Formats: sequence, C-alpha cells, structure tokens
Amino acid sequence: MTTADLEFVLAESAETERTQANAVALERLLTAEPVLVDVAPARDVVPEMTDSTILTSGAPLEWPQYTGGQRRSILNAAIYEGLADSVQAAEKGLDSGRIVVHSTQQHQCIGSVAGIYTASMPVLVVRDETHGGTAFCNLYEGKSRHRLNYGSYNDEVRDGLQWLQNVMAPVLATAIDLHGPIPLKPIMTRALRLGDELHSRNTAASMLFERELTTSFIKMGNTSSAEAVTDVLEFFRDNDYTFLRMGMAAAKAIADAAHGVPASTLVTGMAINCRSFGIRISGLGDQWFTGAHPQLVGKFFDGFGPEDVEWIGGESCFTEVAGVGAFAQAAAPALQAYQGGSFTTMMENNMSLYSITLAEHPQFAIPAMGFRGTPVGIDLVEVLRQQRTPMIDGGLAGSSGGQIGAGLLVPDLDCFRSAYDSYRAQYDPIDGSTAHGRSSSHSSQESAR
Amino acid sequence: MTTADLEFVLAESAETERTQANAVALERLLTAEPVLVDVAPARDVVPEMTDSTILTSGAPLEWPQYTGGQRRSILNAAIYEGLADSVQAAEKGLDSGRIVVHSTQQHQCIGSVAGIYTASMPVLVVRDETHGGTAFCNLYEGKSRHRLNYGSYNDEVRDGLQWLQNVMAPVLATAIDLHGPIPLKPIMTRALRLGDELHSRNTAASMLFERELTTSFIKMGNTSSAEAVTDVLEFFRDNDYTFLRMGMAAAKAIADAAHGVPASTLVTGMAINCRSFGIRISGLGDQWFTGAHPQLVGKFFDGFGPEDVEWIGGESCFTEVAGVGAFAQAAAPALQAYQGGSFTTMMENNMSLYSITLAEHPQFAIPAMGFRGTPVGIDLVEVLRQQRTPMIDGGLAGSSGGQIGAGLLVPDLDCFRSAYDSYRAQYDPIDGSTAHGRSSSHSSQESAR
Repeated sequence: MTTADLEFVLAESAETERTQANAVALERLLTAEPVLVDVAPARDVVPEMTDSTILTSGAPLEWPQYTGGQRRSILNAAIYEGLADSVQAAEKGLDSGRIVVHSTQQHQCIGSVAGIYTASMPVLVVRDETHGGTAFCNLYEGKSRHRLNYGSYNDEVRDGLQWLQNVMAPVLATAIDLHGPIPLKPIMTRALRLGDELHSRNTAASMLFERELTTSFIKMGNTSSAEAVTDVLEFFRDNDYTFLRMGMAAAKAIADAAHGVPASTLVTGMAINCRSFGIRISGLGDQWFTGAHPQLVGKFFDGFGPEDVEWIGGESCFTEVAGVGAFAQAAAPALQAYQGGSFTTMMENNMSLYSITLAEHPQFAIPAMGFRGTPVGIDLVEVLRQQRTPMIDGGLAGSSGGQIGAGLLVPDLDCFRSAYDSYRAQYDPIDGSTAHGRSSSHSSQESAR
Repeated sequence: MTTADLEFVLAESAETERTQANAVALERLLTAEPVLVDVAPARDVVPEMTDSTILTSGAPLEWPQYTGGQRRSILNAAIYEGLADSVQAAEKGLDSGRIVVHSTQQHQCIGSVAGIYTASMPVLVVRDETHGGTAFCNLYEGKSRHRLNYGSYNDEVRDGLQWLQNVMAPVLATAIDLHGPIPLKPIMTRALRLGDELHSRNTAASMLFERELTTSFIKMGNTSSAEAVTDVLEFFRDNDYTFLRMGMAAAKAIADAAHGVPASTLVTGMAINCRSFGIRISGLGDQWFTGAHPQLVGKFFDGFGPEDVEWIGGESCFTEVAGVGAFAQAAAPALQAYQGGSFTTMMENNMSLYSITLAEHPQFAIPAMGFRGTPVGIDLVEVLRQQRTPMIDGGLAGSSGGQIGAGLLVPDLDCFRSAYDSYRAQYDPIDGSTAHGRSSSHSSQESAR
C-alpha cells in the first residue's frame, strides 16, 4: 500500500458516503432471496443469447485473447452446438464473427471452471425474490474427470451433455413445476449444519435439493417420464456436487443484488479466465479489475501435481462473495478428503476472513464456531488495509484437459490495488464528500443488470 | 481403585487370556454388519414375545420395582395394547401376572428412553450378516415432546402409535421388500461425514435412509399405498431423528456380536432403568452390573431445569458401545444447538474417550480429527485404570412426562467396580491363566443370544 492509500484508509474511520453505500450494498447482499423457478434452454431464457453465441467464464476478452484449455473449450462448444463440424471450422467461425464468444457475466450467467454455455444447453433459472433480479447457471456434468467445463471433449462428454439436455432438464423442469419455486437459501443454510461449505463440498445440499423434489418424482413415477426420473435419481446418487450449480446461480443472484451501489467498495464478483483473476466492485460499474492468477495449495489426483495446473476459467468463487465456500470452510471438516489441509488450518483460515468482511451472515452459520455467522461482504478497503485477499475453494483443471485436483486459491493483491485506484479516481475519498460526476458509470451498470 | 485392583491392572501389561479375549470380542464388534431386513409386528418376530408381554428398557426388574414414569409407561402400554381399559385394571393385570413385563434385553430388543414394546407394535428387524444375530428396535414416535417412550400417554400419543402401526410400518415393509435388505453401517459411516454423531443427531442418516428408499417410493406411487407414502415422506421431513431407531438396532446387533467371549472385559451393553444405570461385560454372561444414575450436563427446553429430570429408562447408549454417539460427538458440531456445550468441549470430550477404548474404528471416522477412527471397544479395565467412565449423549425425560431437554451423561464408576469384582471372582487375572469353571455362564448366555 502506498502512503496515499493509507491516508485514505485512515480517513475512512469517520462516517462517510462510502460506509453508508456499503451498508446499502451489504443489506442487498444479505436480503437477496434466490429461488429456483425453472430449468430451460439458454436460448429461451438468457438475455441476448443467440444460437451462435458461446459464453465462457471470466472478465470479458476478445476471441483472439482466449488461449489454451479455455480456447479449446470454446471451440469444442461450437462443435457440440453444431455451429461447426471441426476445430478448424470453429476457429474460422469465431475469427469471422459468425460465432461470437461473450463472458457469462455479460448475460447474467455464472460459469463453473471454463463455464461454457451454448444456446441449446439447459440452465437453472434463479430469481431474487427480494430485488427482482435473475441469474442463470447451467447444469453439472457429473463426476467424471473429463467434462467440457474442465476443457475435455469427446464422445462421452458430448453424450453426457446431451443427456443433461434430453433427460435431466425436462425431469427437473417438470419436477419444479409440480413442486413450485424452490427457495435456495434455506437449503444452503441447512447444508452448512450438515458439513457442506457449498463450493467444494455440496453433498448435503444435493441431498436436500433432491429431497425437495421427491414428492414430484413420485407423482411423475406413473407417467411416461418414470424411466427418466429413475435415471435422474441415479445421477443424484452418483454426484454429490449436483447442488453446486444451484448454489452458484444463487450466489450470482445474491452478488448481483449488491452490485451497482454508487460509492460502495463491496466486492460483488470474482472471476477467472485464462489470462487473469478479476474482481468487480459494487460502486465501480461493470468494469472487471484483473490481475495475476491466484496462488494455490492443492490436493492432486494420482499422477498430477502443481506443475500440471492450467487456468481455464472459473466463477464459482461467487460463492465466496455470497459468504460461503472458503468463507464457510470450517463448516466442512470432511472437505479435507477432497481439498487437503487440516481442520485446524481450515478453522484458522476461516477465522482470518472476518478481517476483510463487513458482516457476519445472519443465516449462514458455522456450527464449529458456535454458530457464528460466516464472514460476508468482502470490502475492497479492508482487503488493502489488512493486505489479505479473499480465499477461494476450487477445483483444478489440468493442461492436458480434465480435473486434476482441488485446492485453496489465494488471489494476488494486484487487482484489488487497481480497483482501488479506479475508486480514488471516481470518488473523492478524503473528505467523504459525494462522488463527483460518476453517476454515468453507475447508471450504465444499473441498466446492464 | 484399591491396591488389589491396581496390582491386577499392572499385571495386565503382559499378554494374557484377557487381552486375547478382548481382541476376539473387538474383532466381532468391528466386523458386525447390521442390515435392515424387515419391519414387522413384534409378536411375529421378537423371540418369546406374547400378546400380554410388555418390554421396557434397562437391566431386568420385577414388576413391583418399577416406579415413576417408567411404571406409568408400562401401565399405559397395557392400555394402548388393549390388555386393560384403565390404569387400575392394568396394575391388577401386572400384579397378577396376567400381563408380564420383561426387559427389552431379554428379547434381543433395544429401547429408547422408557423403551416400551407391546405385541402389536412394529419393529425394525436388523440382522448381523457376519455373525448371524438379530436385533430389534421399534419405531420413532416423532418429535412431539409427548411420546410413550418419554412417559406420556394421551389420545395424540395413541394416534401416533397407531399411525406407525397402520401407515409407517406397512410402507416401510413394502419399500424394504422392493429395495432389498439395507446395510446400515455404510449409512452410519457416511452420516458421520455429514455432521451426525448418530445418537442425539441423526439428521443426515435419516436423509440417507430415506434416500435409499426413494426408488421404492416411486414404484409405490402408482399403487394404493401412494397416499401412505406421501404421509411417510412428510413424517421423514418433519423428524430428523427417524434414523436413531435404525442406528439403535444396528448398535444392539453390533454389541451382541461382541458379547459372550469368555474372559473378555469389553463393555457390550449400557442401559438405564428407573432404578439404575447398568452395564454388561462380554465375558460375564447376561448379568447386568448396576449403579447410580449418571451425572448430566443438560440443555433444557424452556421452562425446565435439572431438577425436573426423571430417569425412566434408556438403551440408546448402545450407540456409544458401538463407537458412535458421544464417542463421535466431534463429528457433530451442530449438536450444540440441541445438547449444549461448545465445539471445543466436544472435541476434548471425544478425545478423552480414546483412553478407555481398545481401538479406533476402521469405518466410523471423525472428519474434524483428520478422519481419525472413533474410539471404540470400551474396556472395563481401562475405565477403572483411567477412573473415567464412558460419556453418553442423551435425551432427558421430565418427572411430569415428556422430553424436557438433552444432555451429556456421565455414569458413576460404581457399576464398573462391581463388574470388575465379579470378573475377579470368575477369572484369575494375576497369572493370566485360563478362566476356571465359568464356561457354564458363558454357554447360558450364548444360547440366550
């Protein structure tokens, strides 16, 4: 931190426009009520999604900037969607602009790892009942190491995606229709008492979600969908990660609710692409502030190590923005088996995050800490003051394709510094006066919501 | 401990018949494979259960010895079963011997709190697939504070028991039949990773159990039982304790497998009745060694306190014998909400129990302790050596009827001392030689199994 930074931080001890703005943003973050209302093809529900649009994780890039596994995933998505019949044809299509690639974030979507969406893929539709926003997440491909979102593509991956489209999605859509909208926060709240942290461990939440739909499934048992229902139940049995996508859509809806409050320094998004780790800030519009990829402490599948990690994208770290994931790691002692670390370390890590957040979550609580609310509301200023960045639980992709492990990610301070520079340029922090002349940036992002 | 005790204990450092016997008993305890095979009326499956037999928890007593809430529960059971139409008539029936009361333990059953069984009540039938034994437990009455097993009886309690008999039991029996036998240990193993300790917290295990039967329920959805299935699912949703009875039957089967090994000092049962806390020892036949009721640290429902506690029975502490419950309390941080205590205390308590057990469980593990196996195989000699008794998680009954809280129970050493006296009288501990002339006590209990 420079001296100028520090002066600002010290001036912050007084009540300022910033603290008032953060209170507003935090209130919106905490009162969002994400509810799963439907499962439908992306083309039917995602704003401005065309048949030739491909979405992918992270701060927006131009097509030529995508490299490595994330680039391969985009090309494979074009093939999967029938937009091209070979990698070469897909490249041509993208080069010419016939096929377009956007960031998920430009379409109210959230991406797991590479986070690939095509028009025909089914998405979870999650509505924030408090503030009216909508967020989308596509479906979990299953526990195979090889998935499109982990940079793999082959017949098995294709068949899996088609199964989600033809079997899982219609079953879920019917079941939700029979059940009615499913509030996700109560499931998340309860799962934290059952050993999940809701990013890298979703075992309990997946069961609770399935349980919500059991009565629907029974009703569907004497219809033509009976066999599909059995298949879906089998998928649920095999895949403890199922709920992650529901949780991610919820986290996106929660974060979006808090986004766009002028003068607020609340972090309302974290996202990875092949080139950078990025954050967005409530009061700074839709700009992503990017920096180096995170440091990581990983636990690797057999035969893999840190040298095999490739960054191909990831936005599941919105769960951390919403106050779960690494911010609830002490709720999930069993996470050690997947991600490594000791429970003592997890408790210490979790505890350390209270220093960079504005609140303790009123619903999400950590039983092992006497039901203390999780640290929530990451504040850009506190991150810089403490010189401590938000931790992230996450899966790791390999340069040869596929998942190769999981770990704890720690971003660099650089993107936080550049966000803060932008904040100082837009708002006058020293005397706490009203921001001068930045309403245009705010209103542009408001309309983008 | 007396000096004579201590001498014995010191002599134990050498390999003796006792340690060999304990190894055999422990092996049986750890390799038992309890499997739920059926749900059926007690009269049809419980050995020597007659229409006029009432079973109740704890070391056997003669009818006139039963007092207070446990006595009332027995009398109410006679009315529920139609053996008498009033408390007075029930007393007459019991006084005259027309109605008989036995300990659950005399019939391979295990009782929750008062642990009342009548002939028409449905029981879970659990078979130990490794050793061939069978254990029974009746069904959970639901979360109402007022239940027959908590000493309450009124129209609501009666209707609830009849619902179990007429709706729950047939649905479960059909569902199990469609599914096939359900191994319980894998459910228990998994539930420990999901925040249960399987005595006072069974939320995850109840969900896992329900999930096992979902496919059966779907098949039953287009039969005449559809409505009953929906009712049962609703009960499951409302009652996170459902699995306790499955777990208790499993624990009884596990403990029985280890019982009856000559010269073994393994504790193979703990049970409470209105007069005493009792234990049985693997090498000491079917005798129960009894002493004072446990000390307790409780968390009470509103309006109740320690002075309101009444001991009316309880055998769910067999879960502790099997290596779960208080022996796995550190797996269940959320238990604080029900039972009180801090997570730090729970970790310390749990850790302390390794000093009185012979092994770390190969399947049941505690995530917060780096997946260390739970302490299992309570050894009478270690209890006396450490002057530390096994802890028990448990519900608390009130003198006015009903549950009034939950807490951690700590038995007195007295019953362990008297068991040890009996052991010394039966076996020659000093030179480690073979037991002299006690095979008869062993064989009598073998046949009772």
